Amino acid sequence: MPSPLDVERRKSRVPPRELAYVLHQSQSYVEKLERLERLLVHDPVFNHKKMYYLTRGEQYKRATQMAGRAEIIARRTNLSEEDTALLHVVLQGFTGCPSSTALHTGMFIKNLGLLFTEEQQAKWMKMAKQWRMVGCYAQTELGHGSNVRGLETTATYVPATDEFEIHSPTLTSMKWWPGALARTANFGVVYARLLLGGKDYGVHNFMVQLRDLETHDAMAGVTLGDIGPKIGFNNVDNGYCTFDHVRIPRDQMGMRVATVTRQGAYLKNSDVPQEVLYFTMLQTRMSYIRSSGLALAKACTITIRYSGVRRQGYDANHPDSKEELGVLDYQTQQYRLFPLLAAAYAITLTGNQVDAFSLQLANQIKRGDLSMLVVGHAMSCGLKVLTSEIACNGIETCRRACGGHGYLLSSGLPVLLGDNLQMVTAEGENFVLCQQTARALLKVHGQFQSSGRLPSAMQFIANIGKASRAQPRSKNQWLELDTYVDVFQQRFLHSLRGLLGKVSLESSIAAGIQNNSMHCYKLSNAYTFLVLVNNFVEAIRPTSTKVLPALQLLCTLFALTQLEAAAGEFMESGCVFPSEMPIIRANIEDLLKLIRPHAVTLVDGFNFSDHTLNSTLGRYDGNVYEALYESAQHDPLNHSSDKVALHELLRPIRDEIARESASKSRL
Amino acid sequence: MPSPLDVERRKSRVPPRELAYVLHQSQSYVEKLERLERLLVHDPVFNHKKMYYLTRGEQYKRATQMAGRAEIIARRTNLSEEDTALLHVVLQGFTGCPSSTALHTGMFIKNLGLLFTEEQQAKWMKMAKQWRMVGCYAQTELGHGSNVRGLETTATYVPATDEFEIHSPTLTSMKWWPGALARTANFGVVYARLLLGGKDYGVHNFMVQLRDLETHDAMAGVTLGDIGPKIGFNNVDNGYCTFDHVRIPRDQMGMRVATVTRQGAYLKNSDVPQEVLYFTMLQTRMSYIRSSGLALAKACTITIRYSGVRRQGYDANHPDSKEELGVLDYQTQQYRLFPLLAAAYAITLTGNQVDAFSLQLANQIKRGDLSMLVVGHAMSCGLKVLTSEIACNGIETCRRACGGHGYLLSSGLPVLLGDNLQMVTAEGENFVLCQQTARALLKVHGQFQSSGRLPSAMQFIANIGKASRAQPRSKNQWLELDTYVDVFQQRFLHSLRGLLGKVSLESSIAAGIQNNSMHCYKLSNAYTFLVLVNNFVEAIRPTSTKVLPALQLLCTLFALTQLEAAAGEFMESGCVFPSEMPIIRANIEDLLKLIRPHAVTLVDGFNFSDHTLNSTLGRYDGNVYEALYESAQHDPLNHSSDKVALHELLRPIRDEIARESASKSRL
Repeated sequence: MPSPLDVERRKSRVPPRELAYVLHQSQSYVEKLERLERLLVHDPVFNHKKMYYLTRGEQYKRATQMAGRAEIIARRTNLSEEDTALLHVVLQGFTGCPSSTALHTGMFIKNLGLLFTEEQQAKWMKMAKQWRMVGCYAQTELGHGSNVRGLETTATYVPATDEFEIHSPTLTSMKWWPGALARTANFGVVYARLLLGGKDYGVHNFMVQLRDLETHDAMAGVTLGDIGPKIGFNNVDNGYCTFDHVRIPRDQMGMRVATVTRQGAYLKNSDVPQEVLYFTMLQTRMSYIRSSGLALAKACTITIRYSGVRRQGYDANHPDSKEELGVLDYQTQQYRLFPLLAAAYAITLTGNQVDAFSLQLANQIKRGDLSMLVVGHAMSCGLKVLTSEIACNGIETCRRACGGHGYLLSSGLPVLLGDNLQMVTAEGENFVLCQQTARALLKVHGQFQSSGRLPSAMQFIANIGKASRAQPRSKNQWLELDTYVDVFQQRFLHSLRGLLGKVSLESSIAAGIQNNSMHCYKLSNAYTFLVLVNNFVEAIRPTSTKVLPALQLLCTLFALTQLEAAAGEFMESGCVFPSEMPIIRANIEDLLKLIRPHAVTLVDGFNFSDHTLNSTLGRYDGNVYEALYESAQHDPLNHSSDKVALHELLRPIRDEIARESASKSRL
Repeated sequence: MPSPLDVERRKSRVPPRELAYVLHQSQSYVEKLERLERLLVHDPVFNHKKMYYLTRGEQYKRATQMAGRAEIIARRTNLSEEDTALLHVVLQGFTGCPSSTALHTGMFIKNLGLLFTEEQQAKWMKMAKQWRMVGCYAQTELGHGSNVRGLETTATYVPATDEFEIHSPTLTSMKWWPGALARTANFGVVYARLLLGGKDYGVHNFMVQLRDLETHDAMAGVTLGDIGPKIGFNNVDNGYCTFDHVRIPRDQMGMRVATVTRQGAYLKNSDVPQEVLYFTMLQTRMSYIRSSGLALAKACTITIRYSGVRRQGYDANHPDSKEELGVLDYQTQQYRLFPLLAAAYAITLTGNQVDAFSLQLANQIKRGDLSMLVVGHAMSCGLKVLTSEIACNGIETCRRACGGHGYLLSSGLPVLLGDNLQMVTAEGENFVLCQQTARALLKVHGQFQSSGRLPSAMQFIANIGKASRAQPRSKNQWLELDTYVDVFQQRFLHSLRGLLGKVSLESSIAAGIQNNSMHCYKLSNAYTFLVLVNNFVEAIRPTSTKVLPALQLLCTLFALTQLEAAAGEFMESGCVFPSEMPIIRANIEDLLKLIRPHAVTLVDGFNFSDHTLNSTLGRYDGNVYEALYESAQHDPLNHSSDKVALHELLRPIRDEIARESASKSRL
C-alpha cells in the first residue's frame, strides 16, 4: 500500500526538482548544497537525533564540536573560502541556530577587517583564521541595547604608559548579550567611550584579550559569565563581562576610522567612507530575509507533510464513510497553511533578488556611487521587519496547526520558533527599525519633490499625487497579477501621503517620525508588501510551464490573503470597496482548492533533507508515529528511575496522614 | 532619589487596591488569596529562584515536591476543601503550569465521582483522597486527539474469568499525552472501545492499575514512558502507555453510564443525564478564560513595569535633552501594550461573570432545566478560543516589547508563553471548537425562528433581520459605550447572516459548517468579542468613582483597538465607514495618552506578588538590572568549567592546522 505522502505526491505533476531550482536560484547551486550536506552527514559528529533531549551545556558542546568538525572537513577537502562559508550555512541548517564560532567568522573577523588598519590586521588576522584567536563582538550592555550612543564602558587613554584603560563604571555598563563571550572567545572587539584628557569622544572599538590563549583562564580584571537560558539560541554562549581597569596597548584601538596619537591627540581619518561601515549593518539585515524564508519554509514543510498523514474526524459530506478525513482536506487547515506556504515562496524569491541587489550595491559603493544606498536602506529595514514577523508568526501558526504533537520539541517546531524569535528584536528592534524605513522613504520623496527624480526601484512614488482608484473589479480581474501590484501600490501611497501630512505639522522630521511611530510601522509594512508582491510577480515570469501555473496560484494567494488580512487599510485608501470582499474571499477559497493537490509537492520543492528538518512530524516518508515513539526513547527521563514521585511526593503525604491519624487517636 | 516605578506610581491617583477588588471580585477574596500565599512562601520548599535553570527532570521533581508540601500544609492548617483547592491555584501561580497531581485532584478524582457508581467510588475515593492512589486520565492516543470516536485501545470482556482485557492493538493506539502518566500515577481511568462478544459498543472508561502501590513498579503488561520535552508544561510528566492483554475485574468499568452484566450483556443506565458529563467539559473550557486572563495580566505587569524602568534613545521633541527617554513614552510601546492591558481587564472581568453564570447553570441542570445549556456551550467554546488566542499572542507581543531581555528565561515571559500555548490546542483545538460555537448559534437562531423566543443572553439575535446601519459618527460618539455594543453586534449579526446563507446551500448543517469552517472561526470570534465588550461595559458600571474613569478608558480602548484590528469586517458589515478610520485612530491615540500616567498603577491592580511573577523584569521595585545579574548567577554554566571550548573546539582545529603544516612541509 502506498504511504499517505506517496498518494499526495501522485496528485501533482509539478516536478519538485524544478521548484527547487527556482527557489534556490539554479540547478548547480542546489547540487552544490546537496554535495556539501553529504560531506557532513556521513560523519557521526553530526548525528543530532538526541538534539531535543540535551541540557543547555550539552547543546553548546554539541554545536561547538560540530562547527569545529565542519571547519576541519573544509580544510581537509580543500574547500574554497566561499564554499567553507556555505558549508557552515548548511551546518546551521541542522543545528538550528548558529554555533558561537559562526560569530567568530561572521562578525569578529569581518569587523577586524573593517575597523582595524591593515597593519593591525597583519598582527591578528592569521591567528584569527587559524582559530587560535577566537573572538566576539562586545557592543550591547545590560542597560543599553539599540541606542549605541548610550553605552557606558570607558576606554581612557593613559599617556604615562601609552595604554587605554578599559573599565565598567556601573552595573548597567556590564557587557551583556554578546554571543561567544561567556565561554568561547579569548578576544573581543569591545565598544567603549573613548576618553582623552577628560574629554568624551564617543564610542570606538578596542581589541581586548579576554582569556589566556593556552589555559583559557580569564585575564586579570576581566569577569566573564553566561547570562542564562533563552527561549532559543541555546547553542550560543551569550555572555556578560565586566572590566576592572583593564589596560591594553594604545595600538589596540580600531584605528581605521580614527587614530589616537602617542600624545593623546584624536585624528579623524577622513578618507575612510562611513558608508562602508553602514553597509555591513545593511548586509546583516538583508541576511535575515533569507533566514526568515528558510525558517518559514521548514515550518511549512513539517506541517503540510504531517497534515498529509494525519486523519481526524469524519467527512460531513459523506456521512456514511467510516474512514477518518485527512487533515489537509479541512478548509481551516488550508486557510492557515497555504498562505504561509505562499509567503515562504515570496520571501525566498525576494531573498534571491535582494542578494543580487546587495552585490550590485556593494560594487556601486566601491566606485563611490551612493545613489542607491537610500533604497537599500529602506528595503533592508522594511524587509527585515516584515519577513521576520511573517516567519515567526507563521512558524507558530504551523505549530498550532499540528495540534498537540506540535507542542513536543521532537516535532522540531518549538526550537525552530525559539531560535528565530531573536530576529524580531535583534539587529534593530522591529518597531525602531520601521522608523528608519519611514525616514528613508521620506528622504526619497523629498528628493523627488526637489529634483523630480526617483531611483528606478521607487518609480511608483511618482504616482503619489494621483488619488486614483479603479472601478469595482470583477471576480476574474481579482485574479490578474497587475491588479495586486496596483492595489498594494495605492495602499502604500495612501499611507505615505498620510505620514507626509502628519510630519508637516511637527517641529522636525525626527519629531514627526517619533510622534507617529505607529504610522511608520504601518507605512514600512505597506511599502514592503508592495516589494514582496512585485518581486514575486517578477520572479515567476521567466519560469518554465511545468512550474509556472502552480507558482501563479501561490502568488495570487499571497497577495489576496495579505489583502484580506489588512482589508481595512485597503478600503481606507480607496482601492478596494467593502462590497468586493465576498468576491475576494470566493477567489481565496477557489485558490485553496486549486493548490490542495500540489501542497506536498510544493513543500518538497524547498528540498530540505530529513537530516536538516530533524522533525518527527516532517519526515519525507510520513512515518510520523514511529518517529514520535522512537524519538521519545532518547528522553533522559526514560533512562532514569521513575521512583521520584513515590519518594518525593507520595511517601511524605502518606506519612503525614499516618501521623495525623496517630495524633487523632491519641486525643 | 525615588525609583522610576515610584515616580510612575505618583502619576496616578487611582488606588490599585480598589482595582484589585474589582478584578478579583471582592476585598475578602483578595485578602484570602494573600493569606493563602503567605502560608506557602515562608516555606523554603517554595523558593523557586532557580526555576529557570533546572533540567526537566528537576522541574518535575520541584513541582511534585511543592504540590505535596502544599497538600501537607493544607491538612496541618485544617483548610476547607474549597480553600485547599484555592491553595493549589495560588501554588500554580508560582509554578507556572500545574503539577502532575493537580490532574489527580482536578481530573482523576472528578472523573471518579462522575463516571463510576457510588459503590465503585466507595472502593477507591478514600485511597484517592489520601493520595495512596494517584491517578491520571488516559484518553488521547498517538494517532487520535480530538476525535474520541477514533480511539483504538480495546477492552474485551472475557466471560470465562469475568474480566476485561485491556489491549493496545496498534502503534497509533498507544496512549500518548496523558499528564501524570509517565512517572506519577499508579492508576489510570483509561478510555477504550468496549467489545462484547465481538461487537463494538464504542468508547467507555475503565479503571486500570498502572503501578504497584508500594514499589511503584509498572504492572505486568503495562509499558510506561515519558513523551519528551515540550515547549511548556515541563513540570508535568505527560506520558505514553501500552497495554499488552492486561486483565482487570469486570467491576472496574465505569458503570454509572452503562453496565456490563456477568453474562456480558450491555445495559444503558437511562437515568443518568448525559448533560452532566457534557457539563464537565464545559466547565473545563470555562476555566481557561480565567487562566488566559491571569496569564495575560502577568505578561502585562512584567512588561509595563520594565517599560517604566527602561530608557532608550533620545526625545526628538527635546533635541537638547541629554537624558534618554523612558520606553513607556514611545507611541509604539503604548500601542502594543495598552490594548493588551485592556484585554487582560476585559478577560478577567468576563471570567468573573462566567464563573457566576456557570454556577447558575449547574444549579439549573441539577433541577433538570437545560434551557441555558446551548448558551453556555456557545459562550464557553467561543470564549475559550478567543481568550486563549488573545492571551498567547499577547504574551508574545509583551515578550517582544521587552526587547532582547524578553528573550531570557529569567524575564519570566518565555516560560509563561510556553506553559499557556497548550491552551490553544488542548480541550478542543481552537479551530475545531469554533465549529461548536457556530453550531450552537445556528441552533439558537433556529429555535428563534420556530418559537420566536431567545435566551436572555442572546436577545440581540432578534435584530438579525435589521440590516440597519448608523450614520457616520462624530469623534465623541465614538467614545460612547453604547456605540461599541452596537457596532460589535452589527458585525456579529452580519457574520451570522452570512453563515446562514452559506449553510442553506449545503446538504446538511454539519456539511455547511465543515465546508465553511473558516467562516465559523470568524463568526465565533465576532460573537465572543461582542460578549467581551458587553461584559466589560456591564462590569464597570457599578464601580466606585475612584476607579471608574480609568476603567472606562480601558474599556473604550479595548473596543476601539479590536475594531481597528478587524476594521475590514466592520466596514463590510456596513456599520463603520472607511472614512471614519482617521477619527477612530485619533481617539485611540488620545486614549493612549490618557492611560499613560495610570499604566503602572493599572498593572499593580492585578496584585501579583514578586514571588508569583518570578520575573527579573517585572519586579515591584523596578531593580531589573540587579535582578538580571543575580539571576544569571544560578546558571549551571556559571558553576562548571568553561574549558569546553578550548578542549572540544579550539584544540582539534589547532591540531589539524599543525598536522596540515607538517604534511605540507613533508611534501
